[in-house]
Amino acid sequence: LGFSAPDLSLYVITDSEVSRGRSHIEVVEKALAGGATCIQLRDKKSSVRELFLIARDLRDITRENNVTFIVNDRLDIALAVGADGVHLGEDDLPLYAARYIMPEEAFLGASPDTLQQAIDAERAGASYLGVGPVFYTSTKPDAGMPLGLNNFSKICRSVSIPVVGIGGIDESNAAEVINAGAAGVAVISGVVGAEDVKEAARRLKSKIELARGEGGVSG
Amino acid sequence: LGFSAPDLSLYVITDSEVSRGRSHIEVVEKALAGGATCIQLRDKKSSVRELFLIARDLRDITRENNVTFIVNDRLDIALAVGADGVHLGEDDLPLYAARYIMPEEAFLGASPDTLQQAIDAERAGASYLGVGPVFYTSTKPDAGMPLGLNNFSKICRSVSIPVVGIGGIDESNAAEVINAGAAGVAVISGVVGAEDVKEAARRLKSKIELARGEGGVSG
Repeated sequence: LGFSAPDLSLYVITDSEVSRGRSHIEVVEKALAGGATCIQLRDKKSSVRELFLIARDLRDITRENNVTFIVNDRLDIALAVGADGVHLGEDDLPLYAARYIMPEEAFLGASPDTLQQAIDAERAGASYLGVGPVFYTSTKPDAGMPLGLNNFSKICRSVSIPVVGIGGIDESNAAEVINAGAAGVAVISGVVGAEDVKEAARRLKSKIELARGEGGVSG
Repeated sequence: LGFSAPDLSLYVITDSEVSRGRSHIEVVEKALAGGATCIQLRDKKSSVRELFLIARDLRDITRENNVTFIVNDRLDIALAVGADGVHLGEDDLPLYAARYIMPEEAFLGASPDTLQQAIDAERAGASYLGVGPVFYTSTKPDAGMPLGLNNFSKICRSVSIPVVGIGGIDESNAAEVINAGAAGVAVISGVVGAEDVKEAARRLKSKIELARGEGGVSG
């Protein structure tokens, strides 16, 4: 694992459940062509063996593109393929335990639900936070009440690590998320589930770059 | 992770599915009292967070008893709690990948189905093998055709790492498994599912010790 100041501005989560039957590698190639700056592999269905092989391929292609590669859930796979980091949820390994066995420079992501959890996650060793849902999202209706931009912004200002907004973010509102203090925008179905993955990534990326260029509080 | 020459002679796999509702810690305390020399935590149902907490407790109690502690499947949990090793199956992380991220002295177990797989597993870095089913087992009827003692013995003689027999082994046949070349006997339901776990372990242990003392080809 490596990397010190990753660009999380367009954080694409490749999830087999929304990819319309396309492989992770196909989706990621197109997302990278469209300007994704960070790729997270999320796959709850494949066996660990399969996941390892997929992660290895994604590690190769993200490295060629100088893009951050994060594995969801499985720190063992992240370590085994030399990913830049791992993203852990509430049911996963506790952050302090993960941090304990990770190389110091490796990237540890967390998904706090509240401001207090965000502060706790930073203290426990998180390198960045995925925070949301910022907006209502029809593709994950059980994701809980949207935070809204004000609450999201409060969390961004309460921690010193980068915060990536997630949930219901698209071209129409990505700039607002950046302006609220996000270091980036995380998307799943908006890019991975799009008919034209590259074009979806490209359009979102241009909104993000514009917002960052226009003086967003980006990290 | 640590340990160099673990005693695998009575290798008890604590599996929540056969433990009659008793907790892992309760089962393991009793198995240790009955003479278990190695404990493997196997639990396909708990969340990773729960599994981490269970593994941490089992690490403490096995360390107090100077008994080897192995985690099934999850190398990240094994590393995080400082287990002595991990046991990986066919759908898990490949052995070479696991070995690559494990401390050198850590113990890596594999479950080859054939003699060739056993040889390959040793070459890929396995520290010991769990081989079976040696006999027919009614508690895991889908485990495949029993190897029988002859085939089991051939595998033991074809590798230089310790082999633990598994599958249908009980008091009545444990000695034959040891005499066939096994370094130990692995049991699940025979101990973990017994009404009196301690007594079941104790009785099995005495058969194993007797066989080893009587000149079994133990590793």
